[in-house]
Amino acid sequence: MHPRIEAVYHVRCDAQTIEERARAIAVEQSIEMPLAAVTDDYVRSEIVGRVEDIREKEHGLFEVRITLAAETVGHDGGQLINMLFGNSSLHADVVLDDVVLPAELVNAFGGPRHGLNGLRQRVGASARALTCSPLKPQGLPAAALADLARRLAHGGVDYIKDDHGLADQAYSPFAERLETVAAALRAAARTDGRIARYVPSLSGDLDAMRRQVRLARDAGVDTVMVAPMICGFANFHRLVRENPGTAFVAHPTMAGAARIAPPLLLGTLFRMLGADAVVFPNYGGRFGYSPDTCRALARRALDKRGDLRPCVPVPAGGMSTERVPEMLAFYGTDVMVLIGGALLEAGEHLIEATRAFVTKVHRHAHGKGA
Amino acid sequence: MHPRIEAVYHVRCDAQTIEERARAIAVEQSIEMPLAAVTDDYVRSEIVGRVEDIREKEHGLFEVRITLAAETVGHDGGQLINMLFGNSSLHADVVLDDVVLPAELVNAFGGPRHGLNGLRQRVGASARALTCSPLKPQGLPAAALADLARRLAHGGVDYIKDDHGLADQAYSPFAERLETVAAALRAAARTDGRIARYVPSLSGDLDAMRRQVRLARDAGVDTVMVAPMICGFANFHRLVRENPGTAFVAHPTMAGAARIAPPLLLGTLFRMLGADAVVFPNYGGRFGYSPDTCRALARRALDKRGDLRPCVPVPAGGMSTERVPEMLAFYGTDVMVLIGGALLEAGEHLIEATRAFVTKVHRHAHGKGA
Repeated sequence: MHPRIEAVYHVRCDAQTIEERARAIAVEQSIEMPLAAVTDDYVRSEIVGRVEDIREKEHGLFEVRITLAAETVGHDGGQLINMLFGNSSLHADVVLDDVVLPAELVNAFGGPRHGLNGLRQRVGASARALTCSPLKPQGLPAAALADLARRLAHGGVDYIKDDHGLADQAYSPFAERLETVAAALRAAARTDGRIARYVPSLSGDLDAMRRQVRLARDAGVDTVMVAPMICGFANFHRLVRENPGTAFVAHPTMAGAARIAPPLLLGTLFRMLGADAVVFPNYGGRFGYSPDTCRALARRALDKRGDLRPCVPVPAGGMSTERVPEMLAFYGTDVMVLIGGALLEAGEHLIEATRAFVTKVHRHAHGKGA
Repeated sequence: MHPRIEAVYHVRCDAQTIEERARAIAVEQSIEMPLAAVTDDYVRSEIVGRVEDIREKEHGLFEVRITLAAETVGHDGGQLINMLFGNSSLHADVVLDDVVLPAELVNAFGGPRHGLNGLRQRVGASARALTCSPLKPQGLPAAALADLARRLAHGGVDYIKDDHGLADQAYSPFAERLETVAAALRAAARTDGRIARYVPSLSGDLDAMRRQVRLARDAGVDTVMVAPMICGFANFHRLVRENPGTAFVAHPTMAGAARIAPPLLLGTLFRMLGADAVVFPNYGGRFGYSPDTCRALARRALDKRGDLRPCVPVPAGGMSTERVPEMLAFYGTDVMVLIGGALLEAGEHLIEATRAFVTKVHRHAHGKGA
């Protein structure tokens, strides 16, 4: 009758004390006070976290399943992460590994508005993998970034995103960058016959991000990027709900390493809040995610989950055109391939390098008959 | 001429590769692309992160000093943490240990509006340590929390804060809780001749938090609690700037363990954004901070730093009245002592237990002649 959220923690502990440690986590993530001092029946029976299962995964590492009352969260994304991991994030021995949410809660959050199919439709793509490249480095004026965007567009890339370091800086203010890049892409579209989508990165407080979404919409830009760990879950979710026509790409910056399992945080939770696509560090790049982590993350972004639309996995972080076939073999075509630095290294041959990247992605689709 | 931010990282690495690893961090936290592909002079000379110093702290652990252009941050709190640790947070071998900020940037953020002196004035305290207790457990209706507040007030505590798990839940909606607790404290003040300050916890997106601050002000409540890691740095900073009459207590929930040094995150950064007081896990409690970490954190909250007011350190997390003398000997009297569960365990003797706690804090001040 009272729906519960099941949180799965990995706890480093010895076998003698794991039961006590598990109970302590259950208390920390619910009432945060001595159980003996709780006199209210409803609090004791419903609100206090319950240890449902403890299993030794390997020597000294336990999987602990704890259920929490869904009422403690309501429909607030910030409160969700607060109840799942808030104070326990201060304990070095605990990793939040997974969560099982009641279907009504998942559907209440609502997830992506557009998701995989919406992002394919926006660029007229069939069931092939999508392509993406970033505008960088920060420090360039808007005109230089727009010229870069123009060349990536001529090269045929689908989505051209801001580097997550681009904000509203003096050397390239958001409004000016948006105008200039959007105009460059419109001009490129007139010769190319297809338009590449600009994905500007939002920054600042909720009001600033709202203004940026509005400016984007006025400039004909319908896809934006956000960093949920920096703007806060509740604010990200609010932006998604307020802007049904806009697609949201989530960036993993400040998502920490290994203290919240990446498939859960970037796959399940970012998607549930409304990410249409989620950028994450691919294995074999600059970051330490394993192939298993990446596979799990992509599955979480795409799997059947309540009524949620699939969210596009965007493996990134030091990828190259050479790796495209391997990546598509690994992820299939329900993916957006993001290549940045490796294209930018082509310098004046950027358009050709982009074309080679894009062609490799498109060919794979046809080769597979997808 | 171009002010720079100095970030200090602790990097686990072998001696052969530390220089390369340090350069990689400098690039990751600035331009995030191959240096060879950067053609712009301004970007190369100013925007690219610079490795200024590498020092071996112990075998396999290096302290790396990197400077970043202050222009990459502007005055956006979200962008500050993004540039300091964003993508590097995804690398398990790096800890953000410290940061040295240009004075103009510190003063532009502005820090606490009220700080230590303001929080003492609000409750008519001399230069003694302040006292604080939480309302919990979540799950109780507003009336039960108000009764708890009444008894803590009769016991003489200065600040009565919501547990950080209390949000806007169905069993105790924010507005109702605020009204009921504030009324109970006003009633208690009529018999006690002094008013205890209620510190409700804000939750939700920026708009929801704004509404909550406004409701609080209308109810005569001028001190609130926020979780900067959950609402986002930019939104926390915005709330502080918008509400000059309100004091803000920062809560460490979701502040992770050990990947950003607690003195930096909770002491320096939360204060700079405007925290008048910062709650943190004291040594010897439920969390793993060492005495050294706690001392450094309290110093960071209080030290001379640009024009910033001092922020009150609030050690907490499993404290008891027995530990008051030791804590005051350790922290001095520029502190707020927060005891929760240990008081609540007193059950029907809560007022007496609170009085014993409060008396011990006040006596220490007089004993020291502070």
